[in-house]
Amino acid sequence: MDKLKELYKKLELIRIYGHAMGVVGFDFETSVPKKAMENESETMAFLSNEAFKISKSKAFEKLVIELYQEVDSLDYLDQVLVKDLYESYLKNKNITPKMDLKFSKVYNQAYIDWLTAKKENNYKKYVPSLKKVIEVSKKKIELRDNHFDDIYDEMLNDNEKGLLQEDLDKFFDELKEGLITLLNKIKNSKKKIRTDFLRRQAPIYKQETFSKYLLELNGFDFDRGYLSTTEHPFTLPLAKDDARVTTHYYEDMVMSNIYSIIHEGGHAILMQNEPDEDYAHYINDNVSNGKHESVSRFFENIIGRSKAYVHLIYPKFQEVFDEFRDVSEQEFYEAINVVEPSLIRTEADEVTYGLHIVIRYEMEKLLTSGKLQVKDANKKWNELYKEYLGIKPKNDSEGILQDVHWTSGFGYFPSYALGNAYNAMYLKEFKKEYDFDEVVSKGDFKTINNWLKEHVFKEANHLDSKEWIKKITNKDLTAKDFIEYLNEKYKDIYDL
Amino acid sequence: MDKLKELYKKLELIRIYGHAMGVVGFDFETSVPKKAMENESETMAFLSNEAFKISKSKAFEKLVIELYQEVDSLDYLDQVLVKDLYESYLKNKNITPKMDLKFSKVYNQAYIDWLTAKKENNYKKYVPSLKKVIEVSKKKIELRDNHFDDIYDEMLNDNEKGLLQEDLDKFFDELKEGLITLLNKIKNSKKKIRTDFLRRQAPIYKQETFSKYLLELNGFDFDRGYLSTTEHPFTLPLAKDDARVTTHYYEDMVMSNIYSIIHEGGHAILMQNEPDEDYAHYINDNVSNGKHESVSRFFENIIGRSKAYVHLIYPKFQEVFDEFRDVSEQEFYEAINVVEPSLIRTEADEVTYGLHIVIRYEMEKLLTSGKLQVKDANKKWNELYKEYLGIKPKNDSEGILQDVHWTSGFGYFPSYALGNAYNAMYLKEFKKEYDFDEVVSKGDFKTINNWLKEHVFKEANHLDSKEWIKKITNKDLTAKDFIEYLNEKYKDIYDL
Repeated sequence: MDKLKELYKKLELIRIYGHAMGVVGFDFETSVPKKAMENESETMAFLSNEAFKISKSKAFEKLVIELYQEVDSLDYLDQVLVKDLYESYLKNKNITPKMDLKFSKVYNQAYIDWLTAKKENNYKKYVPSLKKVIEVSKKKIELRDNHFDDIYDEMLNDNEKGLLQEDLDKFFDELKEGLITLLNKIKNSKKKIRTDFLRRQAPIYKQETFSKYLLELNGFDFDRGYLSTTEHPFTLPLAKDDARVTTHYYEDMVMSNIYSIIHEGGHAILMQNEPDEDYAHYINDNVSNGKHESVSRFFENIIGRSKAYVHLIYPKFQEVFDEFRDVSEQEFYEAINVVEPSLIRTEADEVTYGLHIVIRYEMEKLLTSGKLQVKDANKKWNELYKEYLGIKPKNDSEGILQDVHWTSGFGYFPSYALGNAYNAMYLKEFKKEYDFDEVVSKGDFKTINNWLKEHVFKEANHLDSKEWIKKITNKDLTAKDFIEYLNEKYKDIYDL
Repeated sequence: MDKLKELYKKLELIRIYGHAMGVVGFDFETSVPKKAMENESETMAFLSNEAFKISKSKAFEKLVIELYQEVDSLDYLDQVLVKDLYESYLKNKNITPKMDLKFSKVYNQAYIDWLTAKKENNYKKYVPSLKKVIEVSKKKIELRDNHFDDIYDEMLNDNEKGLLQEDLDKFFDELKEGLITLLNKIKNSKKKIRTDFLRRQAPIYKQETFSKYLLELNGFDFDRGYLSTTEHPFTLPLAKDDARVTTHYYEDMVMSNIYSIIHEGGHAILMQNEPDEDYAHYINDNVSNGKHESVSRFFENIIGRSKAYVHLIYPKFQEVFDEFRDVSEQEFYEAINVVEPSLIRTEADEVTYGLHIVIRYEMEKLLTSGKLQVKDANKKWNELYKEYLGIKPKNDSEGILQDVHWTSGFGYFPSYALGNAYNAMYLKEFKKEYDFDEVVSKGDFKTINNWLKEHVFKEANHLDSKEWIKKITNKDLTAKDFIEYLNEKYKDIYDL
């Protein structure tokens, strides 16, 4: 018991540094002026390194090793904690604080270079940084005493424990086939969907009003969270009672902002509803990206793009945006579900979205194995878009430079596709208990969020992804439910 | 030389903690959600304490003491630095890091309680915190081996080195007399000034546009700074290239926001134009509050409320705010200079403003000496308003709770009045070289800011206030120039 207490004390210190780093990181992506970015990124690296130093101290490592030896005698949540810490201990065993600081600086610099490269539409400016990121990410793995032979397997495992290329190849094949079959059917449909208003302009202050309305409607608690703006929207848990949502307003992307807000709000709702005990046991940051994306995309797509939800928000939408007076509820619903191969992942519809992920998955494999050179990656990117989506980016800003993720390494992208698969699987469970359309069209988010809390969030910090989805659905990971969900939905929309 | 190098290394570490603390502090006042405030204030206290620990380490103290012994052999800027550090060393000699942490928490909690008390218009909720702030502030001074007999003198000296009650009593008497004489003349004037539009509404997004225009016009560099919103506007230097300006938009306070922005922008322009060498020598934070307020109020009043400046901004004002179509340039100019005793300091005109400060100065003396109990301070506040301004607050939110300053102790308020005196003094110097009206009406802020840089900012980090104003103007502190400036200005406006 004394050892645990001592461990908690050190974890509290690490948490404070993490909190400071989180706040500075949030500032870095939302507020910092151009010429202060480098300075601020150094401060972030410093704070992160101070936390790392604590976890690398002899005293801390001794506690972790000793507690791991008696892990079976601990309470369930402490078992989760100690196993997790032991795993981190093994992963970081041969990384010194000095090396860690060097690595942090590489990732932070990559972010700055990516921003510039994207703004200037100049992939070349990003190449040296991206190269370094890949080197450093590989190096971090090679320093481990044990790791999967294939380095990309290890990266995937870091992101979504237990899921390796073998599983994902199978999963993506299943997904690809389902998506392409459906996409072809849709291409042959005679249905005309009105889309002329999708890029219609509306002032930003109206979008701000509507964004707040949506977040509150879906159950986001503004006393425990905050909405801000950034270049590349994200959501960050800064503290137990502090979930930060960000968005980027453009006057001619009203619809896009609506779904970005609902998506990020989904992340925040998970953060605001994790079990209190998880926070008390320092395991609140354990939810994998795939699980997280399952929730954000549950809100964005399964709820947000449903007929019931459009019915729910349409009156307020009309009240706020007189720019869209001539758009009927049905036209709104169809337009936000129109299927059309496009270049930007975050703007993609539910059918083509998965293909954007397939492309990134293939790119990551090629780049990690060295079969593709970083300097040629933009060309390869464009070729894959041509192959899978039949369109080609005109420039790198709408091509390989569109996403921020690679500035901190590989392995995140599959999470989006896994999220779709997971949430389609647990949607089925929800429907066994409730009439989905009725609950959503009434705006009864109490019921929805309580159900998620009880079934989806409850063990999200404790179990690995395979165990977790099995516990919720009694099934193993599959793309079938997602494909089935899409087929059912689009049958109606496109008269298939 | 080696000692200096070693000192610099430690100062760099302190600077990084200070930077992190600054960013978290900025977040605390602009973004943090309600329920996360306490947590975040603890993180701030922690960071501040880590920096304090470095400055309290044996190694650091030894360096400071040894360098102080050979201070005359150092370069000028290092002399400033070492003298400053030695003074801090003496002040903090008997304060342990543990005590420092306790003190920080008192100030941070006071801020939270003040916010609540103000929002709920409940002075009682603030009383315990304010009491503790006074106790702690006194205790910090009593712990010094040497200090002025009168504790308030020491507080004043901490804020504006060299200026004690003896000086300020004399200064405020001179000021009071001049202001009251002028105020009486104005009260007897028959001049009618149109003010019906002062609380007219305009949407916040228009105010945002206009705020950015004003900051840019005055020379604020957005590549090295940022504008955000908060409860109680302030400006914070986060890093060399990162000056943060804040404001609070209200739909019915367009004019008020304009002058708040110009004021805060003034602080930022000083921050953005301090000598680079000062930053390199770790003395960039030495500008006293009085000097800082002299600059912000130079922009707000001497420039901002001049006829020439109104002439300069009026066309853009008309372009942005069609709500004010019927207001002529002359009406704008007169309205923002109307003299009218009022309750809120930050909304006060240039004539009555000084009386708000006199009241606070007297309150601080009474509260520090114990002649006034904190629990009765709101009543006393209201009595003094009745006495000096002839009006009485209806409640404490528009009375004693209006200002944030006391959450971090006493001694700041006199700076505002000193600022007015300083800038009226150096305005005379400026006018010896340039035609003020011509330069301002042309919007030639290059000339203005260069002149300030060369004369006002240059030694602001190096000299104490007395030496500094003497160096700029060849005179000792006086309220005369300010009174003269006001008389000249208001003669025209009120046909005196």
